[in-house]
Amino acid sequence: MKTYTVAVVGATGAVGEQIIKFLAERKFPIKELRPLASKRSAGNTILFNGEEIVVQEAVPEAFEGVDIALFSAGGSISEKLAPEAVKRGAVVIDNTNAFRMDPDVPLVVPEVNKEAIRQHKGIIANPNCSTIQMVVALKPLYERYGFDRVVVTTFQAVSGSGWQAVVELEDQVRASVNNDQLPLKVMPVGKLDKHYPIAFNVIPQCDVGLENGYTLEEMKMVRETNKIFADDKIQVTATCVRVPVYRGHSESVYVELKEDFDLEEVRELLANFPGIVVQDNIQEQVYPMPNEVTGQTEVYVGRIRRDLHHSHALNFWVVADNLLKGAATNAIQIAEALISED
Amino acid sequence: MKTYTVAVVGATGAVGEQIIKFLAERKFPIKELRPLASKRSAGNTILFNGEEIVVQEAVPEAFEGVDIALFSAGGSISEKLAPEAVKRGAVVIDNTNAFRMDPDVPLVVPEVNKEAIRQHKGIIANPNCSTIQMVVALKPLYERYGFDRVVVTTFQAVSGSGWQAVVELEDQVRASVNNDQLPLKVMPVGKLDKHYPIAFNVIPQCDVGLENGYTLEEMKMVRETNKIFADDKIQVTATCVRVPVYRGHSESVYVELKEDFDLEEVRELLANFPGIVVQDNIQEQVYPMPNEVTGQTEVYVGRIRRDLHHSHALNFWVVADNLLKGAATNAIQIAEALISED
Repeated sequence: MKTYTVAVVGATGAVGEQIIKFLAERKFPIKELRPLASKRSAGNTILFNGEEIVVQEAVPEAFEGVDIALFSAGGSISEKLAPEAVKRGAVVIDNTNAFRMDPDVPLVVPEVNKEAIRQHKGIIANPNCSTIQMVVALKPLYERYGFDRVVVTTFQAVSGSGWQAVVELEDQVRASVNNDQLPLKVMPVGKLDKHYPIAFNVIPQCDVGLENGYTLEEMKMVRETNKIFADDKIQVTATCVRVPVYRGHSESVYVELKEDFDLEEVRELLANFPGIVVQDNIQEQVYPMPNEVTGQTEVYVGRIRRDLHHSHALNFWVVADNLLKGAATNAIQIAEALISED
Repeated sequence: MKTYTVAVVGATGAVGEQIIKFLAERKFPIKELRPLASKRSAGNTILFNGEEIVVQEAVPEAFEGVDIALFSAGGSISEKLAPEAVKRGAVVIDNTNAFRMDPDVPLVVPEVNKEAIRQHKGIIANPNCSTIQMVVALKPLYERYGFDRVVVTTFQAVSGSGWQAVVELEDQVRASVNNDQLPLKVMPVGKLDKHYPIAFNVIPQCDVGLENGYTLEEMKMVRETNKIFADDKIQVTATCVRVPVYRGHSESVYVELKEDFDLEEVRELLANFPGIVVQDNIQEQVYPMPNEVTGQTEVYVGRIRRDLHHSHALNFWVVADNLLKGAATNAIQIAEALISED
């Protein structure tokens, strides 16, 4: 069996750690694992298959001999180093926003558009976490009925903003119990001027605000959905909101299908689709919630119900672990699909 | 000036307390305040205008001589005692779901349909908290443009389920800091079998689940909106979600107006409407959040933006204090409108 030298850039971050765990758990055919990180984290060790491996600094030369490089260290690192990795013969699977809308870069959710991988020119992009779980749930509906309009509102966990945001929520909660006040530093967007509490609050902003009144996160959901389905006629309207949840994004999705549908058939289509788990019975209080999907790799769908007025419209609720299917799992699935074509 | 004997039923509850505070603050012309509650709470005292008043048991005879009775003690108490109060000559303003859809009972948000008060036959209903803040924000758009379809997703605070739910969230948060586990008792719906954690979680269920796949809370938003606007052609689709916030409901609203619109005009219409405060500039990180509306009586609107595809469609974000405009403030406003007609 062919084996591969795999670099993980951002090896000590929230998603990088999980990717390394999956490479071991899913028995990815590894020749050499090369964990890379910032200068600050270089020299630390990580555990892989019971072996201690030293984290190296992510510099261009670190990609010599690498077959596959999984990037999760922020957009600017990807912009700088992904081309260096490609130049040295690696295929890059990039988890940041750096290349997602580049026409030369396939944007892939394996359950939805695995075939796009073949068109890569060195870089394959992993979509935004909120987009991934929505398009997985929409795919079986797209195939059977087609749709144009989607209205989505998200409930996004703080881990989507990295470990600092998780620590900030933990600290705020501890402070509230002790009646302390803490300086605000991270939420909603670390690099912006204003910071708001996230404990016991919701913030209708994920990522920076744009001139058109939307946030970048909302525009990612709009544009990435068009690109993944390779269908510019799909009209997504998104409202992205941060909630005081550590892990697990939830989404309220309204979709207008192109034709009338049978609700039982919709439930079956979703339940039979790879990567989807249906948990749906409101009268028995069965529906997915973020605290129950932590650590799960699937996309969970519930609250499936007809619009009361529009015969083609449907509502549902989608929950997934944003660090797994929203990031690490999807990246590994892309890597697995890539080597299966080898 | 004419003065009134006012009974507050549920005087020791979350909303009742606030109503009594407002009666004093807003200088309601009171002849006698009569705080009523369950047998268990009777005998306690409450403070009103610096005076201690003993809480009496809410029994039919307690309404003798009462002009206005404000009920916030749950649907079954209203069902039993509101007719007794009416029989004794009181006008009832009911904060529960008991009579809202009764064709003989006006359902009133003063900014929207104050004139409906005149048709009362003894009982006037206060709408559900989630409905109130949405219809206030929709009213100026309805007047200027008209609309048919509304898609709303709510982020509802635990205080909407009463003090027990607030205490449950506090206890769960304290337990998480101390790494304890607590029995689950209240969320999402106290009287149902299954209970889920609300700390660091979101629960896509407010109130009981119905056969049509919606929850009662969602159907309240649908039906009450039709009744308040006296327009059965309005098509509301609602998804109601409980979030770990103590106070302040937030809503993501998508509305398809009947004609094209100018976004600046929409902002002005909203800003000039009584009871609405516009906080809207995503690039400057200006938008309403529940932690900032606590204690405020207005409805806050932000994230106002055009749909990217549909020329008649608009998105916005509405936040209000669910115990105030969502309950106590609206009830007091109804009482004030009622006596202004006297």
